[in-house]
Amino acid sequence: MAKNMEKITSRDVDFAQWYTDVVKNSGLVDYGPVKGTMIFKPYGYAIWENIQSILDKEFKKVGVTNVYFPLLIPASLFNKEKEHIDGFAPELATVTKVGDKQLGEDLYIRPTSEVLIIEHFAKEIKSYRDMPLLYNQWTNVMRWEKTTRPFLRSSEFLWNEGHTVHSDPKEAKDLTLKMLQIYKDFATNHLLLPVISGQKTEREKFAGAQETYTIEALMYDGQSLQSGTSHYFGDNFAKAFNVKFQNKNQQEEFAYTTSWGLSTRLIGAIIMTHADDQGLVLPSSVAPVQIQIININDSEEVISTSTNLFDSLIDDYKVFIDKSDKSFGFKISEAEIKGVPIRIEVGPRDLANGVVTISRRDIRSKEQVKLENVKAYIDEQIKEYDKNIYKIALKNREERTFTANTLEEYKAVLDKKLGFVLVPFCGEVSCEDDVKEKTQTNSRCIPDGIKQEKSKCFNCGKDSNYKVYFAKAY
Amino acid sequence: MAKNMEKITSRDVDFAQWYTDVVKNSGLVDYGPVKGTMIFKPYGYAIWENIQSILDKEFKKVGVTNVYFPLLIPASLFNKEKEHIDGFAPELATVTKVGDKQLGEDLYIRPTSEVLIIEHFAKEIKSYRDMPLLYNQWTNVMRWEKTTRPFLRSSEFLWNEGHTVHSDPKEAKDLTLKMLQIYKDFATNHLLLPVISGQKTEREKFAGAQETYTIEALMYDGQSLQSGTSHYFGDNFAKAFNVKFQNKNQQEEFAYTTSWGLSTRLIGAIIMTHADDQGLVLPSSVAPVQIQIININDSEEVISTSTNLFDSLIDDYKVFIDKSDKSFGFKISEAEIKGVPIRIEVGPRDLANGVVTISRRDIRSKEQVKLENVKAYIDEQIKEYDKNIYKIALKNREERTFTANTLEEYKAVLDKKLGFVLVPFCGEVSCEDDVKEKTQTNSRCIPDGIKQEKSKCFNCGKDSNYKVYFAKAY
Repeated sequence: MAKNMEKITSRDVDFAQWYTDVVKNSGLVDYGPVKGTMIFKPYGYAIWENIQSILDKEFKKVGVTNVYFPLLIPASLFNKEKEHIDGFAPELATVTKVGDKQLGEDLYIRPTSEVLIIEHFAKEIKSYRDMPLLYNQWTNVMRWEKTTRPFLRSSEFLWNEGHTVHSDPKEAKDLTLKMLQIYKDFATNHLLLPVISGQKTEREKFAGAQETYTIEALMYDGQSLQSGTSHYFGDNFAKAFNVKFQNKNQQEEFAYTTSWGLSTRLIGAIIMTHADDQGLVLPSSVAPVQIQIININDSEEVISTSTNLFDSLIDDYKVFIDKSDKSFGFKISEAEIKGVPIRIEVGPRDLANGVVTISRRDIRSKEQVKLENVKAYIDEQIKEYDKNIYKIALKNREERTFTANTLEEYKAVLDKKLGFVLVPFCGEVSCEDDVKEKTQTNSRCIPDGIKQEKSKCFNCGKDSNYKVYFAKAY
Repeated sequence: MAKNMEKITSRDVDFAQWYTDVVKNSGLVDYGPVKGTMIFKPYGYAIWENIQSILDKEFKKVGVTNVYFPLLIPASLFNKEKEHIDGFAPELATVTKVGDKQLGEDLYIRPTSEVLIIEHFAKEIKSYRDMPLLYNQWTNVMRWEKTTRPFLRSSEFLWNEGHTVHSDPKEAKDLTLKMLQIYKDFATNHLLLPVISGQKTEREKFAGAQETYTIEALMYDGQSLQSGTSHYFGDNFAKAFNVKFQNKNQQEEFAYTTSWGLSTRLIGAIIMTHADDQGLVLPSSVAPVQIQIININDSEEVISTSTNLFDSLIDDYKVFIDKSDKSFGFKISEAEIKGVPIRIEVGPRDLANGVVTISRRDIRSKEQVKLENVKAYIDEQIKEYDKNIYKIALKNREERTFTANTLEEYKAVLDKKLGFVLVPFCGEVSCEDDVKEKTQTNSRCIPDGIKQEKSKCFNCGKDSNYKVYFAKAY
């Protein structure tokens, strides 16, 4: 245990405390002075930069262009779509004055930018030829929260919000699903989160949307975390904001819109899926440091070897040599807590044998590797590392995926072990309200790739048209 | 003149109207619903993305790490540094409630983040070993403005704000100047703005700083635009926020801080320096499209030639083929108004001779170039293009740089032609207030690289220790 680092509670003893300990000791974030806000320190922000960089390229491949819309939304504009304002009203941070001067109208800090962007679309599209417009912005948003936790729930968070407008409902719907697929591929292949995907129920869909699609990740403790959503609005917003265009038949028609978002919550998902009692375990794609080189002393031989190793790896990996005067043991602990995938220790005794010691963070291995083989060894081991942490997460999800046909069965499952529980469900909002009240759980999604058949709702017993995953969720 | 584009007023007839026309017709921005805010449309935001991408690499080369601090600052925190709050108080957008609930304390939307970051530094640094910390964030900030113009002055803008803390005042001062140099090199070499640099006078320095350094660009109309600033705070903020560390002699000492920022104003500087009566002229480094290929018809030969050209250029340039069904003439006009550096027209008559027609936006040339020579021709011409627009801007600055020794001389110069006027100046705030009142101009900087000698102040006649550039400014 390094100095200045407090002991991390075991995740099997107290998962919530474990999470707090890991977040604090790994140097990702600090708390901001306003309740519920957080400071992204360099190590935490670097993960977000890596997420942005990968996703931004994927967005651009499908023709999405980045934009920036203003932070503040006039109350009168927000109030135009009733479900939307009802959904957000209690969480809206409101600017009422500038200096000492009261404003004529309340201005909301954006909780999301649908209304600003749809109003802009109204000006931009006259004809079907002007569409689609595929916009995205990387911004901060605010939704005031009563209870907050770093990454999972904070009054301010960072995200991408995509907004598109189309002349054709099918094209809009396809885009909605396309963006969900980009999120799913990213979560699966880069964050190594074995997410499930599907449609949200009526109760859980986004305020103002016709359909909401989601990816859901299962945390180590068996709770679900919504990790990215994509919304098909149909012409709901277009009608509320009068967004019309002239179609190919020279007729006026309301346009079709979508939005999709993914936020810094994902960093919470990474932690609660992969981290362990020694600290973070970061997927190599988004790790700020993929390989850390630690020198046992500062002899000429050690320094020159670690410099050569650095030079041989830096074209392919994010490599860091900690040159501070912290102790060897401290540096080891820090690399572990920070979840650096691969650690190379360079010391005189090893060098006498022409080797260095390489550790993998996931399995905490220690392997002596000949200097000439280091690059090849790491190329292989970093792939194995990623495969292994995905496998562990998938195993957890599989061991925590259940079925139930009645509320009693459902409760019995959750009493034993939290997880995804597939149940036949009627889809009614009031029935889901009832489940929520009785069990503090709700639906996560109507999953893709599951055979859907008619049955009786697990709660109310009415006809059910599909099966739905319910779970306790963050 | 293409359809849907209004005529651009000549910049020699009405510079302000010309600016508005260019901004509007080139599709960079639109106005937001809250007065003084703006929407960055894809073409405008892409310029900012290019600026970010180049500068971010330069910052990281000197060890700067990106972070994200919260949007909202409690009033009690902001009020700790008196000069700072006095400087910003009237411009602060203030959150007073969430939903219907009044907050216990006013929260300001950041106009800049010094106070948040210095408070965080206080927690992070115990010893000289913990420094330097070199932080940067790319964010939105708000400073409520009475009169606003796109890019130049808006209530919300985007910028980088760097904040650093050091154990040694010389190191902090050196960093301040280093970051100014990065800004200057970037403005000169990438934006092709022949900026001058130097220190701000007492009156013009940043609220709370000991020293402020600036780069100033001269616009086509002879007005100056502050284009990037770097501030040395000494231990001013450290004292106000009690940021102490243990130095090498085991004694407590206040830390030394800096900050530096550059904003979307720069896009205004690019426009007002390089654009002309036909629209934008964008430096190739930051142009969203560097080469636009326009097909005269959609014959097989034309399409396949333009596709081949695209493929041969796309590894080195940002290339765009407009495949919309807009007319040929419209596409030409649009490429001109949008300031695309190089335009290639592909048509059957040219192809019969094995050539395409290539135009440079700056000199509006039209050159027939053999297909096999296109890449080499463009490699050369795009360099010439950048050189030429820099040369034109430099010529304007040189023709608008003057000297004066008395207020009468100064007024006489400005009556003839606006520009930078080098004057001996006492440095007193009250004297500069007086100049401002009499002439609506103020000092821009105490320039680097100018021989500084003792003289008499051009306004008050008292002893002057240095020469200062005064100018009318945006």
